[in-house]
Amino acid sequence: MTALNETHDPHLRSWLSSAHAEGGDFPIQNLPFAVFRRKGSTEPLRGGVAIGDQVIDLAELHSAKPFSGRAAEALAAASQSTLNALMGLTPAHWSALRLALSRALREGAHEQAVLQIFLVPQAQVEYALPARIGDYTDFYTSIYHATNVGRLFRPDNPLMPNYKWVPIGYHGRASSVVVSGQNFARPCGQLKAPDSEAPVLGASKRLDIELELGVFLGQYNALGEAVPMAQAEEHVFGLCLLNDWSARDIQAWEYQPLGPFLSKNFATTISPWVVTMEALTPYRTAFARPAGAALPGQRAQPRGGRSRYPALRRPADAGHARARRRH
Amino acid sequence: MTALNETHDPHLRSWLSSAHAEGGDFPIQNLPFAVFRRKGSTEPLRGGVAIGDQVIDLAELHSAKPFSGRAAEALAAASQSTLNALMGLTPAHWSALRLALSRALREGAHEQAVLQIFLVPQAQVEYALPARIGDYTDFYTSIYHATNVGRLFRPDNPLMPNYKWVPIGYHGRASSVVVSGQNFARPCGQLKAPDSEAPVLGASKRLDIELELGVFLGQYNALGEAVPMAQAEEHVFGLCLLNDWSARDIQAWEYQPLGPFLSKNFATTISPWVVTMEALTPYRTAFARPAGAALPGQRAQPRGGRSRYPALRRPADAGHARARRRH
Repeated sequence: MTALNETHDPHLRSWLSSAHAEGGDFPIQNLPFAVFRRKGSTEPLRGGVAIGDQVIDLAELHSAKPFSGRAAEALAAASQSTLNALMGLTPAHWSALRLALSRALREGAHEQAVLQIFLVPQAQVEYALPARIGDYTDFYTSIYHATNVGRLFRPDNPLMPNYKWVPIGYHGRASSVVVSGQNFARPCGQLKAPDSEAPVLGASKRLDIELELGVFLGQYNALGEAVPMAQAEEHVFGLCLLNDWSARDIQAWEYQPLGPFLSKNFATTISPWVVTMEALTPYRTAFARPAGAALPGQRAQPRGGRSRYPALRRPADAGHARARRRH
Repeated sequence: MTALNETHDPHLRSWLSSAHAEGGDFPIQNLPFAVFRRKGSTEPLRGGVAIGDQVIDLAELHSAKPFSGRAAEALAAASQSTLNALMGLTPAHWSALRLALSRALREGAHEQAVLQIFLVPQAQVEYALPARIGDYTDFYTSIYHATNVGRLFRPDNPLMPNYKWVPIGYHGRASSVVVSGQNFARPCGQLKAPDSEAPVLGASKRLDIELELGVFLGQYNALGEAVPMAQAEEHVFGLCLLNDWSARDIQAWEYQPLGPFLSKNFATTISPWVVTMEALTPYRTAFARPAGAALPGQRAQPRGGRSRYPALRRPADAGHARARRRH
């Protein structure tokens, strides 16, 4: 877990006045990342950081070579058309770039002259997916949500016995994750009423939306090698908001025994901005064990030997997105 | 469906004698694609075509510019480190390259002198994944298999009522698809015996393997736009063999309600060679409707209007792999 540092100081002030707008999402303490270009243009996509009502063009900034060391390495990675290379670096790199940007944006910073050339108004840009998503996993993490949704499909048995023991998740269609704010087609599929003998083909009438937390995993682990719990957080680049759209009528008919498929494939929408774990440090609260949950000593314990086979090393799979349900 | 043409002629002979080896997999009528480099080297990965006991190095061949038109375009695409660009072209491109290679490999071909410089013995190469796989979907397509596997998990209810109506499938972990012939770790996970109250953590004892057919989809369709049945085959670049590994003991405990997850995530292995649909044309047989299956007139019929929303167009997602179970 990242410690509080000078970038979190609530008294920091930027030379950009819109960073201090009442209720603004992008003060100097936030500095989230996106991929953007000017609206309607054919410019190359590149990384950007939000400040006030502006986007810092990281590709242009990189060409001015304002930073050194890890901050410069991270800036070079962030100037590409996806943030996969940036997400594949280490927390030390992410932190160095954040610190360098924070200092350059402060009142009196000598970098003001160079940085303000590379600002693009947010009102004039369009966003793309922050990363090429290699795999997208949807976890079923709220017991309240799991009970509520489970009741729709299995009124007599909403929560399965495995729920309190093992993380329940499934792979979503990575290619249908899109940036929020776009239209998409209402899904069409087989619908079967409980009292009908046969399904009919038609447009979904029970389209549902859930608000979830998207998690971008950057650093990879080799296939077959577990990530120790103590190191898990180093793999998390940042968080976004995610809307999980579901055609509940298609899902009810198709989902057994292999899980939801076409009922979820039509679209998953995410916010263009990815907020880093470091930016969220001041807002963290301690974990509270839910009443009645299995205690650590009661959880599944290792038994038997380790893997018999050597692990296979493979190249980076950066940019995996994971979704966690909040509601 | 591709028609038979001169590349299928069983009497064709190559100037490469190993193409005529008894029981050989790679006669001049086959010409499958892979991605390769010399074993143990740091050479760039590039496309190759198998002939006899050799691989034609398509990157080197491309540099000699032996072909023109669509065959040249396809050869350029096939010289990259993945076959995604080749798979994203049209069946006319794939066919033009096949015809050009077939003619250049025949006895008496004037291209023999240039082509034989670019042959690498298969015994000296290593293979990589043929494509960057954007999504990997596992379909549950054999009623015999579905009944047999279903009986393992639900002895009293092996086949769900949806099985005969809707294709049952789920997304697999695209990043764990690897080329056959490599070692991987035996999965470790929660195992719960039916008579135990709590699960234990341990190495899987019920590792299962299935032989399936892998299907590489190249050309994309826009999100929300269906591919008409009559055009579906134009999206299929070719087939490979696929082994679907499953930890059945982990699966039995985790799979409800969202389907298999960790029990399938550890590895899926595929053959390095992708056989094109055109190469398989002589072996096709007519579809036979299984006894008792719903007739077309009994299948789900459209009802109600089309999608209310305009479809969203997005860039190509080439290289999606789909698996079809054979056993």
